[in-house]
Amino acid sequence: MQSIICFTSDFGMGDTWVGMCHAVIYRACPQARVVDLAHDVLPYDIRKAAAVAASGVWQLPEAIHLVVVDPGVGGGRRDLCVVTGGGTVLVGPDNGVLIPATWRAGGISEAYAIDPEALTFRSPLATFHARDVLAPAAAALACGVDPSAVGAAISPESLVHSPFERARETDGVVTAEVVDVDRFGSVRIAVSIDDLEEFGLRCDVLEMGFGHVNLAVPFGATFSDVPEGDPVALFDSSGWLTLAVRMGSAAERYGIEPGQRARVRGVIS
Amino acid sequence: MQSIICFTSDFGMGDTWVGMCHAVIYRACPQARVVDLAHDVLPYDIRKAAAVAASGVWQLPEAIHLVVVDPGVGGGRRDLCVVTGGGTVLVGPDNGVLIPATWRAGGISEAYAIDPEALTFRSPLATFHARDVLAPAAAALACGVDPSAVGAAISPESLVHSPFERARETDGVVTAEVVDVDRFGSVRIAVSIDDLEEFGLRCDVLEMGFGHVNLAVPFGATFSDVPEGDPVALFDSSGWLTLAVRMGSAAERYGIEPGQRARVRGVIS
Amino acid sequence: MQSIICFTSDFGMGDTWVGMCHAVIYRACPQARVVDLAHDVLPYDIRKAAAVAASGVWQLPEAIHLVVVDPGVGGGRRDLCVVTGGGTVLVGPDNGVLIPATWRAGGISEAYAIDPEALTFRSPLATFHARDVLAPAAAALACGVDPSAVGAAISPESLVHSPFERARETDGVVTAEVVDVDRFGSVRIAVSIDDLEEFGLRCDVLEMGFGHVNLAVPFGATFSDVPEGDPVALFDSSGWLTLAVRMGSAAERYGIEPGQRARVRGVIS
Repeated sequence: MQSIICFTSDFGMGDTWVGMCHAVIYRACPQARVVDLAHDVLPYDIRKAAAVAASGVWQLPEAIHLVVVDPGVGGGRRDLCVVTGGGTVLVGPDNGVLIPATWRAGGISEAYAIDPEALTFRSPLATFHARDVLAPAAAALACGVDPSAVGAAISPESLVHSPFERARETDGVVTAEVVDVDRFGSVRIAVSIDDLEEFGLRCDVLEMGFGHVNLAVPFGATFSDVPEGDPVALFDSSGWLTLAVRMGSAAERYGIEPGQRARVRGVIS
Repeated sequence: MQSIICFTSDFGMGDTWVGMCHAVIYRACPQARVVDLAHDVLPYDIRKAAAVAASGVWQLPEAIHLVVVDPGVGGGRRDLCVVTGGGTVLVGPDNGVLIPATWRAGGISEAYAIDPEALTFRSPLATFHARDVLAPAAAALACGVDPSAVGAAISPESLVHSPFERARETDGVVTAEVVDVDRFGSVRIAVSIDDLEEFGLRCDVLEMGFGHVNLAVPFGATFSDVPEGDPVALFDSSGWLTLAVRMGSAAERYGIEPGQRARVRGVIS
Repeated sequence: MQSIICFTSDFGMGDTWVGMCHAVIYRACPQARVVDLAHDVLPYDIRKAAAVAASGVWQLPEAIHLVVVDPGVGGGRRDLCVVTGGGTVLVGPDNGVLIPATWRAGGISEAYAIDPEALTFRSPLATFHARDVLAPAAAALACGVDPSAVGAAISPESLVHSPFERARETDGVVTAEVVDVDRFGSVRIAVSIDDLEEFGLRCDVLEMGFGHVNLAVPFGATFSDVPEGDPVALFDSSGWLTLAVRMGSAAERYGIEPGQRARVRGVIS
């Protein structure tokens, strides 16, 4: 089977960075298909990139996921290849950006520190890890190289932690971080569908709190389950718990921003 | 021959939506090539998406055209596969967005309501038709599945109407909607090259009116047929009648916006 | 080997232009891979497109480079296929946009004026050279057509000059134009790595001047060689000399814009 590489970064589309990574991958592994998940992550926004990558892994666990958000570029930070318990392969820097994706794919099974010397592509420069180390590693993996061949095994415990905490429950209230606001103003919270079952949130109504704002919203299956202008809680295509307003912006109406803490409680009804 | 899928949506590039549709298509039909026509259509802007899709069909009638602008997502609205008289295959929601494309490809020959059960890809969620129904349908068609196999035949008359009216002529004046303003400020009007012949607009000068503004502009073949700063009417690459200003913005200078009605009259000279 | 086509333009992603060029290429040469280097070049910004294309050629000399920034579209200007001394193939308009790329790939070895009649793709319109002439030419070259078959040989001396001058040295001071500011605010100057050696700039500290601003900055290998907030000079992934501020914007802090002249002097230390 051809390999699909899902690519997420903070490169934007205004420079040659994304295209050059595509080119490097196609040159090294012509049968690969590179799919751009998102490159408009704000520079250095590890939280958003981690949320996007986790969503990508949840939607397409059999792909190779290449994630590049890189404040420490060139600073001696490790480049990782991580294999999850579910068999998904992730490539990216050791700054926590890969961790939430592993939560949704069976945890970390193996981790390797990519060794540029183990890859055939080399460059005289040291400023562009994505092109010179991470993309070539993803290409090698797409062409069948075993993860253990791209570098030395390292302890999963040694990896830098996630940019946001996992959802947790205390006295029936789940607290989790707002990780993203989408193009339509819908608010994504770090509660996955698996968390839903674990925390017993599968109710008809959810109480959701953000700072001083407290809402009781129907927990519907789709946007169309509420009238235009009404709020609804649902799992959107990202697989994160989402607060949306039908044909409107939940983030604007309730003044919610990424990084805020959300409180969620299921209401039996 | 490999199949090309031309993809238009209001997804933007800031989320995983576009990439995930690519991935779903490549997984289902590795030999397909997905080409992104436009994803920066404003959320819910059916008119613009319809104009873009029609332009895409006119330029590449042999491709499969996947068009997703989706205010009624999840609301029980039908997903369509439409085959035109000219043989072009279109996939998209039943909200009118596919109709102008059929005007430019021989009208509607067959229409089918896509049945997700007829596709091999299924998902537990119901919020993302593009990924879970429309993209898999396009992939199946790209891999040779007959349109009649993706769902039940439906009457073309039952389809939701176009977001804008077809150009029409009364007493020598053609009225048509402004459907788009491009990146350079050029104004596109819902008059196609075929309409041009039918309405007898092939003249050296066109009188064009927008609200209180009335212009007499040369009907030239290219931007360079007029001096810098002068207006010109032409058929641009979209195949829609276009009012442009050489090295300037026609929309800004004349205060024209999408949705306005244009009056066009040919001047014999 | 499959051919990679690196594509740079001022088309933006809001219209069908980029996608239609992809489609035309895939239709004519299914085994090609089109890689988008940058399409958010501002309309008519030949300088930026030339800087991007030169960067692309430096990074991937074995690809075919298609560059479209087109103020004179339709105005009788020549369309070029240029082969460099290093063997890189470039396709684009004769407005200077290809020239800086040739500086970084061994100069101009051969130049041809593309003859649309020599290509199999033809269109009844004359407004979209990228789709109707340049992209088909790139596709033909990607499928093995010899550059000499796409049009008549022309004299390299007859080509329109570069939008910016080559770096030059006078009395130990190198003057060169600011050609680009990247997404992170880093300032790119038209001094290539080869120029570096020629002008003897390989020093520990560079004096850099922009208008009234004069700086002495460490010439480091990577962003991490200076503390957060400090300036650093380096060759970034584009291969142009770059003034950056670690975790900040050099362009904002020093008020630097593309088109300004930079003065650079190496300080022995």
